[in-house]
Amino acid sequence: MSFRIEKDTMGEIKVANENYWAAQTQRSLENFRIGIEKMPSELIKAFAVLKRSLAVVNNKLGKLDAEKTGAIVQACDEILSGKLSDQFPLAVWQTGSGTQTNMNLNEVIASRGTELLGGDFRTKRLIHPNDHVNMSQSSNDTFPTAMHIAAVTEVEDLLLPALKRLTETLAKKRDEFADIVKIGRTHLQDATPLTLGQEFSGYAAMLETNYTQIERSLEYVRELAIGGTAVGTGINAHPKLGVMAAEEISAFTEKRFVSAPNKFQALTSHDALVYASGAVKSLAANLMKIANDIRWLSSGPRCGIGELRIPENEPGSSIMPGKVNPTQSEAVTMVACQVFGNDTAIAFGASQGNFELNVFKPVIIYNFLQSVRLLADSMDSFNEHCAVGIEANRDVIEGYLKNSLMLVTALNPYIGYENAAKIAKTAYKENSTLKETAVKLGLLTAEEFEKYVIPEEMVTPKE
Amino acid sequence: MSFRIEKDTMGEIKVANENYWAAQTQRSLENFRIGIEKMPSELIKAFAVLKRSLAVVNNKLGKLDAEKTGAIVQACDEILSGKLSDQFPLAVWQTGSGTQTNMNLNEVIASRGTELLGGDFRTKRLIHPNDHVNMSQSSNDTFPTAMHIAAVTEVEDLLLPALKRLTETLAKKRDEFADIVKIGRTHLQDATPLTLGQEFSGYAAMLETNYTQIERSLEYVRELAIGGTAVGTGINAHPKLGVMAAEEISAFTEKRFVSAPNKFQALTSHDALVYASGAVKSLAANLMKIANDIRWLSSGPRCGIGELRIPENEPGSSIMPGKVNPTQSEAVTMVACQVFGNDTAIAFGASQGNFELNVFKPVIIYNFLQSVRLLADSMDSFNEHCAVGIEANRDVIEGYLKNSLMLVTALNPYIGYENAAKIAKTAYKENSTLKETAVKLGLLTAEEFEKYVIPEEMVTPKE
Amino acid sequence: MSFRIEKDTMGEIKVANENYWAAQTQRSLENFRIGIEKMPSELIKAFAVLKRSLAVVNNKLGKLDAEKTGAIVQACDEILSGKLSDQFPLAVWQTGSGTQTNMNLNEVIASRGTELLGGDFRTKRLIHPNDHVNMSQSSNDTFPTAMHIAAVTEVEDLLLPALKRLTETLAKKRDEFADIVKIGRTHLQDATPLTLGQEFSGYAAMLETNYTQIERSLEYVRELAIGGTAVGTGINAHPKLGVMAAEEISAFTEKRFVSAPNKFQALTSHDALVYASGAVKSLAANLMKIANDIRWLSSGPRCGIGELRIPENEPGSSIMPGKVNPTQSEAVTMVACQVFGNDTAIAFGASQGNFELNVFKPVIIYNFLQSVRLLADSMDSFNEHCAVGIEANRDVIEGYLKNSLMLVTALNPYIGYENAAKIAKTAYKENSTLKETAVKLGLLTAEEFEKYVIPEEMVTPKE
Amino acid sequence: MSFRIEKDTMGEIKVANENYWAAQTQRSLENFRIGIEKMPSELIKAFAVLKRSLAVVNNKLGKLDAEKTGAIVQACDEILSGKLSDQFPLAVWQTGSGTQTNMNLNEVIASRGTELLGGDFRTKRLIHPNDHVNMSQSSNDTFPTAMHIAAVTEVEDLLLPALKRLTETLAKKRDEFADIVKIGRTHLQDATPLTLGQEFSGYAAMLETNYTQIERSLEYVRELAIGGTAVGTGINAHPKLGVMAAEEISAFTEKRFVSAPNKFQALTSHDALVYASGAVKSLAANLMKIANDIRWLSSGPRCGIGELRIPENEPGSSIMPGKVNPTQSEAVTMVACQVFGNDTAIAFGASQGNFELNVFKPVIIYNFLQSVRLLADSMDSFNEHCAVGIEANRDVIEGYLKNSLMLVTALNPYIGYENAAKIAKTAYKENSTLKETAVKLGLLTAEEFEKYVIPEEMVTPKE
Repeated sequence: MSFRIEKDTMGEIKVANENYWAAQTQRSLENFRIGIEKMPSELIKAFAVLKRSLAVVNNKLGKLDAEKTGAIVQACDEILSGKLSDQFPLAVWQTGSGTQTNMNLNEVIASRGTELLGGDFRTKRLIHPNDHVNMSQSSNDTFPTAMHIAAVTEVEDLLLPALKRLTETLAKKRDEFADIVKIGRTHLQDATPLTLGQEFSGYAAMLETNYTQIERSLEYVRELAIGGTAVGTGINAHPKLGVMAAEEISAFTEKRFVSAPNKFQALTSHDALVYASGAVKSLAANLMKIANDIRWLSSGPRCGIGELRIPENEPGSSIMPGKVNPTQSEAVTMVACQVFGNDTAIAFGASQGNFELNVFKPVIIYNFLQSVRLLADSMDSFNEHCAVGIEANRDVIEGYLKNSLMLVTALNPYIGYENAAKIAKTAYKENSTLKETAVKLGLLTAEEFEKYVIPEEMVTPKE
Repeated sequence: MSFRIEKDTMGEIKVANENYWAAQTQRSLENFRIGIEKMPSELIKAFAVLKRSLAVVNNKLGKLDAEKTGAIVQACDEILSGKLSDQFPLAVWQTGSGTQTNMNLNEVIASRGTELLGGDFRTKRLIHPNDHVNMSQSSNDTFPTAMHIAAVTEVEDLLLPALKRLTETLAKKRDEFADIVKIGRTHLQDATPLTLGQEFSGYAAMLETNYTQIERSLEYVRELAIGGTAVGTGINAHPKLGVMAAEEISAFTEKRFVSAPNKFQALTSHDALVYASGAVKSLAANLMKIANDIRWLSSGPRCGIGELRIPENEPGSSIMPGKVNPTQSEAVTMVACQVFGNDTAIAFGASQGNFELNVFKPVIIYNFLQSVRLLADSMDSFNEHCAVGIEANRDVIEGYLKNSLMLVTALNPYIGYENAAKIAKTAYKENSTLKETAVKLGLLTAEEFEKYVIPEEMVTPKE
Repeated sequence: MSFRIEKDTMGEIKVANENYWAAQTQRSLENFRIGIEKMPSELIKAFAVLKRSLAVVNNKLGKLDAEKTGAIVQACDEILSGKLSDQFPLAVWQTGSGTQTNMNLNEVIASRGTELLGGDFRTKRLIHPNDHVNMSQSSNDTFPTAMHIAAVTEVEDLLLPALKRLTETLAKKRDEFADIVKIGRTHLQDATPLTLGQEFSGYAAMLETNYTQIERSLEYVRELAIGGTAVGTGINAHPKLGVMAAEEISAFTEKRFVSAPNKFQALTSHDALVYASGAVKSLAANLMKIANDIRWLSSGPRCGIGELRIPENEPGSSIMPGKVNPTQSEAVTMVACQVFGNDTAIAFGASQGNFELNVFKPVIIYNFLQSVRLLADSMDSFNEHCAVGIEANRDVIEGYLKNSLMLVTALNPYIGYENAAKIAKTAYKENSTLKETAVKLGLLTAEEFEKYVIPEEMVTPKE
Repeated sequence: MSFRIEKDTMGEIKVANENYWAAQTQRSLENFRIGIEKMPSELIKAFAVLKRSLAVVNNKLGKLDAEKTGAIVQACDEILSGKLSDQFPLAVWQTGSGTQTNMNLNEVIASRGTELLGGDFRTKRLIHPNDHVNMSQSSNDTFPTAMHIAAVTEVEDLLLPALKRLTETLAKKRDEFADIVKIGRTHLQDATPLTLGQEFSGYAAMLETNYTQIERSLEYVRELAIGGTAVGTGINAHPKLGVMAAEEISAFTEKRFVSAPNKFQALTSHDALVYASGAVKSLAANLMKIANDIRWLSSGPRCGIGELRIPENEPGSSIMPGKVNPTQSEAVTMVACQVFGNDTAIAFGASQGNFELNVFKPVIIYNFLQSVRLLADSMDSFNEHCAVGIEANRDVIEGYLKNSLMLVTALNPYIGYENAAKIAKTAYKENSTLKETAVKLGLLTAEEFEKYVIPEEMVTPKE
């Protein structure tokens, strides 16, 4: 491999000739050999959006000439198209302001922009990483801006659509199962009946709630730090920069962004992402519950509950032949655990800001984007490979329903709670039916029992 | 002590004559001797609101006569006035549906209501705990309803007002300190200047964000499960009960509540409280940051940063005479840790629902109410005993400002980033001033330096 | 109420005459009106042990006269007997070093000691809180010492014995159920058989592991900070104080304690309690799993798994007559959630030390002691009210076993995994038995099947 | 790309010809398109160790012929050498037992083994994935075995050595700084003095504690599930298999492993890893504290504490020229946040076992290995790029020491706590020195003051 010498304010350093990046990226590569997690590609793309937009704004403000602006814009577009994806090798675990990733972008764009202008970045850059690509910016405002652009983008483009797809499947099942009366279960114990459709209506409603919770939590994430520069005062930036940048970014991404009303907050607090992560966690909690229900209801095939049948996707065991497992549920519940852990890491990092800056930015955005990606992907996987194929096992469902003691609840208004309890307990002890027991105890005639205890009428309130 | 015999569907049990409660409360007392944490008094009061409102609604629906209704209402009002506070002795750590606390309420109200009707509950109750006080209800819908009533009440009456008071104090300091230019700090290292007022503006803005985050998260908590009864179907309840109950509760509390649109969700998911706890955690994270900043800025008195002076409230050390410590900050940051832990417990519990019911309700509401109470109280304490008394140490602030090397940033637009860096590094190495060094390096004249580097002009953006 | 004027280095303050405490306790009461959580009584008692022991040691070192020593010792013994329990009213949420609780002890002991010497503490104390009771001590070494004394005491006296009792019950069930062959379940799906005794052997083994994990984690908690005084250097303390104090405390408590080898660590790190909390959390995770298994295995009575019967302790529902719920399991699993949350709070607090001191001590010990108490109490409750009464439902167990398809695994060595899978899948599809299907598919004769597939022989490895 | 048809018990599926894997790996690839996290390479290697060892043991037991054994062993050795690293493409987020990764190993080894025997796995495998490579095994015992092998290996080979290196550096600094007396700080406020060496002795001692905590926690991780097969009974395995396998694995890895005494526990509980993760978290908490101290002590250069100088590794800011930041500390503290989050995910997953199996295995080991890797790498990075280069700034340290008011503590034994407090408070108010003030207040002569207040003598206890 051939190398060139790059320089920064710390001195000289060797960089492989093939790389667009320069001294600061190289230093970070060498100084932070930590883990295998690279800065998320979603964040790199958000940075490209930002750098592109800032070039346009700086040009409008008369600070950057058209030629350089064009070159920067084109280089950013190449990053967005995925072309330069091997040029962003830095670890999540670097400086807590993400300065080195900001410089990675600045350096790569400056080099590639130089090429686009016909120059040779290996000998002399026509575009300067700091003075041009980073013009009127600081890592301290660009990094949180890129965090927010990436977060809104991934939530809107990935998470919410996947959530909607799963909700729709569950809503379809809700309608499909509307007439199937089944036994309810509370405390894992038999309870009064409901329809399978009602059970699924709860799942769909839960996810609809999560949708609006997440969507509304984005409101704060739409606020961009850009324009605050080093400490929030906007030093070296034009007073209109923040607003113009937010407008340009909104126009380019076709997503709603605004300039953060208080830039000091925007650099040193991550309340927006803590709150959004809480919304995301609420989804994880609901998904864990739904995925658990599905696998319990399909447990068996012969020694479990077995009210549902789910698709068989793969052999379930390397030793037990013919075994089929609820593996999609398992992936979802594992993802939920991860999201819970990520939320802990995010909140902890967010609480640790000092003075004008929070320097836990990379760990915060790494975890947030992982949560979003995992939830989106696992919902799609669960939807496609499990939810759409859920079927009701009507025989099993009907067997349980007939057999259940909790139908006795329908008698409360006629004979009171205590007499009803006596019937249920006696029937259980004597392994008998409710009707037989009710009659035997002299509390009701058979006709009365049949008139009052109709499972199909127990699934809605009555006047 | 004298005892009487109470009965329930499990059989007989002895209860001390002085107590209003009956068999089920007594059983729970004996079966769950776990810990020292009692069901929160805020929850008991929310239950009293609920039981009162349900009596009124059942009366309107023609199910409960006026006499019994009046007695139940009066008994509930006594609970709300604090009169019967020793009658709710049950542990948080009981059945996960809170059934026993629902029965505790039913029993106490039935007994006290009997007394109010002129009866003797020790021999015969004129009001039945299940058939009258719990009419058209189940623990499964009353407990989550009481959780939501308590949560909204405590957040609106306790947390948000305290948050507002502290925000106002910080906003006052923001204005008071508007003209004090000071050195900024990022990565704990000297950075470009800002005003102390700007620094406090960030704190105030953070808390304003938390205010709306928490307020908006309440929207879901306003939804009440009541009307769903045992499994969400509303069995044994009138179809209009849910809506009428929400209206009655709203009217009585003067707070906004609505009937939960999906009762299956309302019994088995706690997404509303998970989301609200996330909002509360966002506040805790910001408070930890603010309280940390205040104690760091007031660190010293002679070997720390010392830019602020905070009130001296108590001797700081049992061995070091004259020591004064930032104890109010410490209380706040400890509370933040607790809130983080509580949020973990809440989300975990909320994820563990099965089928028609989540049976981690007591642990969820216990933690939520503790978080709310601790944040409210600690903000008030911090406000009163620390924030209102914060003073700027102008001499110290000015000393740092003059001395700082980061004023060099103002030179970027004139001599470029690299030359500016050379000045700063040389001045540091030679323990010299920026101006001397700039001149010595031949990069600027003294006059130019003085024209470009004016701290007061570095605290706002420039065209 | 009548008041007296007390003084400290901050000035004068009114204290109700009936109270033994003095100025600093009173200031803390007024300055920290936060929450309802008082400093745990276990910690107050640990402090009494410590103050008592230090008086003895200071006397041995010739620093404290016999008269004062005797009075301090006697006052401490009164605290240990519970006599003065209303004299420690301070909140958990105070200064993070616990200075005010140390002073609360110093003040109460000084006052009560004065009384014991025949003086009137309301006019003049014969024993000085700082100079005598706190002699050679600082809050900074006494508070962590008391934390460790309390932690070791509660774990050894409360948690480990309760853990042992529950383990013994489960081991008894293991033996009692040794001959009951049942279907295994993995992924909630039917798997190869095991005995119910083997299943319970896993539970017992898990708790035995937790026992040694917790016990060994105590090793670090046995190290006492005392002797480090203000910053770890031991200023104003005798060089032998640390070792002598640890010996005296060990002798008095009959528990093993040693002087912490590095006092700087002992003041500023809480690695011992973080590690111990991790061990405690491991127990919580296992208990959640065991309690969940028990309630799933006893789910029903007619629409669940129903392999076990557990004691009926109370009516399960306020609306569904005759319902019985696994409430003891629910209390245990809620406690597990709480312990998980507490562990988060502990670790977070422990990570936040600065320089010579960690000032998150009260929140750490509050959570640790709550975890210990809740686990101990809930295990005892679960043991007494559930575990001891667990019975096998042999009919149900046998029904499942006969019916299961996973017995086919026994055929792997004879006909290979793929043929075995074909049998299982075909039997499931055709709702047939394994034997019929095996024969029909021509893979085995009925005799061969009967020879190879013997559930009782599938529960142990074979040569 | 050319494809071949592979079959399993679910039917046919297309696999790219270049791949060694077969049907089940392919299914998993297609069914679990979730996230970007692949099964950790450390786990794949642990599986290779396991598969290799089982072939050897099965051969010894006379179940596997020498030819197949040799081929399996050689294929595993190739995996261990890194040769086949592109053949393990499965996601972490798959079935919760890791069955598909077990099958991935089985399939690749069977294919490569077939090649090594001269066969063509694309047409016919001479070694069967289930019957030979997975002989006497189940995913349910192999996956947890591989988890433990990987965990012990990474902790022993990666984490503990890195921890030792950093400890040694800090111990060297401890000795190097032994004579530098400096002001102590508690509550961020000036306290009594200590030596800088003493301060570093605390850091070294903390890490030594973490070393033994982690090492001892491994004891449980050394227990291997292998031999338990499907549900813990060891069905289809030889009774001696577990012990022989543990011995073979120990011999091959040169690490200590034993056969888990209770296989039911070994499949369904992850108490070993929860406990070990708690130990790892204790390290993270200490590292956060140490890294924070280092960056605070080196804060400045002119407006912070500045007692230490740390190496300058890269430009600190893209806008502020000449800025140098404590970036290595920041990487460490971000890692600590991640480890805290991971511990939450691990414990949560571990608590969710049901019956004979815990199906949160992949998420548990993914997080555990990430924690181990990040801590090891970040400690090495911090050590190399920061800790070894830490220097004391003696001028600054001495300036603070002389100036501090807390030297007054040395006077307690001579004039009492209250008089000493009066001196400190007066000196602070009058901006005067302690000596001047002491004399002025008539409490001591100048000579007495000089005799009693000697910072160098305040750093050790005195008789």
